[in-house]
Amino acid sequence: EASTAQTTNLSLNRTFNSYGKYNHPLDSPSSRKRLGFLQKNNSLEERSRIVSSLKERTAKTLLSCDNIGGDARFRRTETDFSNLFARDLLPAKNGEEPTMQFLLEIVEILTSYIRKTFDRSTKVLDFHHPHQLLEGMEGFNLELSDQPESLEQILVDCRDTLKYGVRTGHPRFFNQLSTGLDIVGLAGEWLTSTANTNMFTYEIAPVFVLMEQLTLKKMREIIGWPNGEGDGIFSPGGAISNMYSVMIARYKFFPEVKTKGMAAAPRLILFTSEHSHYSIKKASAALGFGTENLILLNTDERGRVIPADLEAKVIAAKQKGYVPMYVNATAGTTVYGAFDPINEIADICEKYNMWLHVDGAWGGGLLMSRKHRYKLNGVQRANSVTWNPHKMMGVPLQCSAILVRERGLLQGCNSMCAGYLFQPDKQYDVTYDTGDKAIQCGRHVDIFKFWLMWKAKGTVGFEQHIDNCLDLSAYLYNKIKNREGFEMVFNEEPQHTNVCFWYIPPSLRSLPDGRERRERLHKVAPKIKAMMMESGTTMVGYQPQGDKVNFFRMVISNPAATRSDIDFLIEEIERLGHDL
Amino acid sequence: EASTAQTTNLSLNRTFNSYGKYNHPLDSPSSRKRLGFLQKNNSLEERSRIVSSLKERTAKTLLSCDNIGGDARFRRTETDFSNLFARDLLPAKNGEEPTMQFLLEIVEILTSYIRKTFDRSTKVLDFHHPHQLLEGMEGFNLELSDQPESLEQILVDCRDTLKYGVRTGHPRFFNQLSTGLDIVGLAGEWLTSTANTNMFTYEIAPVFVLMEQLTLKKMREIIGWPNGEGDGIFSPGGAISNMYSVMIARYKFFPEVKTKGMAAAPRLILFTSEHSHYSIKKASAALGFGTENLILLNTDERGRVIPADLEAKVIAAKQKGYVPMYVNATAGTTVYGAFDPINEIADICEKYNMWLHVDGAWGGGLLMSRKHRYKLNGVQRANSVTWNPHKMMGVPLQCSAILVRERGLLQGCNSMCAGYLFQPDKQYDVTYDTGDKAIQCGRHVDIFKFWLMWKAKGTVGFEQHIDNCLDLSAYLYNKIKNREGFEMVFNEEPQHTNVCFWYIPPSLRSLPDGRERRERLHKVAPKIKAMMMESGTTMVGYQPQGDKVNFFRMVISNPAATRSDIDFLIEEIERLGHDL
Repeated sequence: EASTAQTTNLSLNRTFNSYGKYNHPLDSPSSRKRLGFLQKNNSLEERSRIVSSLKERTAKTLLSCDNIGGDARFRRTETDFSNLFARDLLPAKNGEEPTMQFLLEIVEILTSYIRKTFDRSTKVLDFHHPHQLLEGMEGFNLELSDQPESLEQILVDCRDTLKYGVRTGHPRFFNQLSTGLDIVGLAGEWLTSTANTNMFTYEIAPVFVLMEQLTLKKMREIIGWPNGEGDGIFSPGGAISNMYSVMIARYKFFPEVKTKGMAAAPRLILFTSEHSHYSIKKASAALGFGTENLILLNTDERGRVIPADLEAKVIAAKQKGYVPMYVNATAGTTVYGAFDPINEIADICEKYNMWLHVDGAWGGGLLMSRKHRYKLNGVQRANSVTWNPHKMMGVPLQCSAILVRERGLLQGCNSMCAGYLFQPDKQYDVTYDTGDKAIQCGRHVDIFKFWLMWKAKGTVGFEQHIDNCLDLSAYLYNKIKNREGFEMVFNEEPQHTNVCFWYIPPSLRSLPDGRERRERLHKVAPKIKAMMMESGTTMVGYQPQGDKVNFFRMVISNPAATRSDIDFLIEEIERLGHDL
Repeated sequence: EASTAQTTNLSLNRTFNSYGKYNHPLDSPSSRKRLGFLQKNNSLEERSRIVSSLKERTAKTLLSCDNIGGDARFRRTETDFSNLFARDLLPAKNGEEPTMQFLLEIVEILTSYIRKTFDRSTKVLDFHHPHQLLEGMEGFNLELSDQPESLEQILVDCRDTLKYGVRTGHPRFFNQLSTGLDIVGLAGEWLTSTANTNMFTYEIAPVFVLMEQLTLKKMREIIGWPNGEGDGIFSPGGAISNMYSVMIARYKFFPEVKTKGMAAAPRLILFTSEHSHYSIKKASAALGFGTENLILLNTDERGRVIPADLEAKVIAAKQKGYVPMYVNATAGTTVYGAFDPINEIADICEKYNMWLHVDGAWGGGLLMSRKHRYKLNGVQRANSVTWNPHKMMGVPLQCSAILVRERGLLQGCNSMCAGYLFQPDKQYDVTYDTGDKAIQCGRHVDIFKFWLMWKAKGTVGFEQHIDNCLDLSAYLYNKIKNREGFEMVFNEEPQHTNVCFWYIPPSLRSLPDGRERRERLHKVAPKIKAMMMESGTTMVGYQPQGDKVNFFRMVISNPAATRSDIDFLIEEIERLGHDL
């Protein structure tokens, strides 16, 4: 089988130093520009000798690529990148060898970073203030220059960028709704970057366009729309997905706004929970509704919309002659993790002919769990759903979908029929060109990593991940609900993985409830958070909400987190906050 | 120096087959599920024996990671991925070894793809119709399933995804404004995916946030705003950047629209060239202006706005009692590559107190070239500028900036002060939290690859790339302007790299100008394009424009393209179109 025998030969041998161990430059101290293989006790002369001999070696290696059947055979060598520049890489003549060496060096930096990220003895972050980083940390210079830097400097910059960043995949990073580092998803992103294409037409993204179509259909099936019918698109984040939902609702009820503007419609009113995500407000401002025409709905003590309040506000708006048009029900609020009662809201939407959007950016993932999906009961009655796989499902950033029950609205709302992209006389079925549905033109390929993860984990894998995260949050809740020094922001077990609590330092425990206690408590979480970041041990968010002073919001979406990390977090908060 | 000696040991040895050559699975025919090391002449029994022994070996390797100073030492082995699943990767116990093996295998797939992309003997694409891919090509199954697939299948899927995709970095891919595959930019994207963080706060993206700030300042300096003062943000593409410009203009003149909606403003009129990008139209629809209130401006034969037409239309709008508010001048139109006369348009904007936006998504890159930047003369008079480094500057997708001359408008227009993200009581200077300027919440890190490329190439490197591309397009223009069978869509040398032309097959050359010729000519470009895609040799776009029937639009932004590729394109069009 000749073709098999004649294929690519990529030999990845490394040169070891005199200790028989490879020197990883990321770990070498201070002088970051030094080549990894140079020992501290080399004299300057020796160094320059070694460098020259290496340059020769590199040159030889470049020449020694032998071609077999059109493919080059590579031997990984310690390459001297100090004499190589971007211009020496592909498509440069003889650029193949330096390109491969450079990329393999990058991969080593990245794989080393990945291994350390999962190692609990590594810090979550190495915090520095903006002015410190701007002044330049140990030669890490952020300024751009007119002349090119060597690839060696570029590699150093890559290491420094990671060094001074935040390890969002670390088992003890709980700061955001998006945490963790999924390896298959990461591989998917690397491939996506390498393919470097654009979602607007089937012509230049045939496989990705079909993957998006199939995945959106699967998501609609899981929502519960018959046969997965409907429409949808991946957008650059939940805020844009929510913006789509408002645009589509307006197009459904007042299509003439597209051509004539808001002047063609009566005064339109939108409704959303006071606990909902601020993107609904951003959309109401951007799309020309005005934030005053977005009515905030009251919630119960758990942060769930009170349906009677919605109905009362709809009636009040109608009495003023306004037109209630759109209701957003949140499935998993940002802070409390509350699920609005979709079925009761849907009843009201049907009664008053309003669009029902479900913002499941954070909670949508629970649809994958047989145990927890009841929290979204009624979601199939929504007209549109936002669902961010990059949150609860652990897909790398960004990956957000807007799903629409009625087909054709996305296209009708956004199409402008640009002749240069969406030629009707192409040789393939142009209904696969999805670009005209989008408010974007070029659109990043967000689907592949998600598709690949789904293949690799299966639906059951996502389910297991979600169930684990909810189990962990129940563990946290049960551990602190009666613990001395901890106070829950709301009673009963959380609906999502959000666990909201105050830590009360001993100095505040005997204070009576009142203004002084509140003011002092308000400062506790920011102080503990600052100390956490300074020590780099863990990260968790805090915020005030309504009349409640600053409290911690713990969220768990990180697949690397275990009970021991939860224990650690509790002890760390106690350790840092004890003397406040 | 103990720390140096005890660092990571990542040995990348490979096992070779009996021919002493590594079998690259990407190149092995038909049975893609077969392990690369198995020879065709192995009997089934032998195969199963080899597989079992490998499983043992893998198991042994997993156990043999010895820990030195907290870091594991790896030896790359032929890993049997058929028995490994996503759940075996990090953060799984003992997941480090399979994770490294899996990622290194992915990297091999990607580096092999990269090398072939730059090899002109590789096809640009291997075209298949949607129904063919959906039916499953040689076992490439796009459907998602409930149960996990093995990592071996995942690797096969990765290879197939690349195989059936389009090589946008190929020297003969000219289909889009974004082409090419920059190796440093690619490395930057791999790192970005690995860091997997979000731009909204300094807290979780300290380095990236500062890089964005410095890079935007540099871009504003290049535009010519004093001291690089002003504001800006990277957005998910030029369409969203253009949308920002309209939002900010509205906020500047009618800030009350943010709270009260479009009802609070008079009838507002926007102006843009009939040749401008359709995103301006999308924005006028989405933001509630209505497409009828976007007035299209006439252009000269080269596709440049006629300033007198703008002034006449502004006066006409005012006479109707409307309020002319916003003018978009395009720097590099999508099809003709035309540059609107910014200075003359700026005069009119000043006279009538209108916002001047320059859409330099495509042409902004020319600002980096001392030779060509005069084409944007007057750009420093703009109130806002869209500039997509992912187009003419060859940065991987996506990378688009909206730059604003007046500081504070972006923030004022979009801020909603979400307490859970933008806490005022953080321990660092929170003016670095950029998220509230955006219409997005989470925002992908688009800056790093661009920053890294700028470091690696220097400003001079971008300049050289741009000058080269424009030289190449001049070469193409000069070669075909008087060539038999070619007809230019407009006379004189193009302003940008866009070269627009018809190919006239011999059968049409003697036909008199008239309906029949036009109708037949209209079908020529689509037919040639279809044949190009079927044969996979090259890709170039076509479209009609106004009353002009389908013509080819050649654009050059690919750093891999050379004169020989231009020659090839011309000959290929002649070869494919000769008998039409």
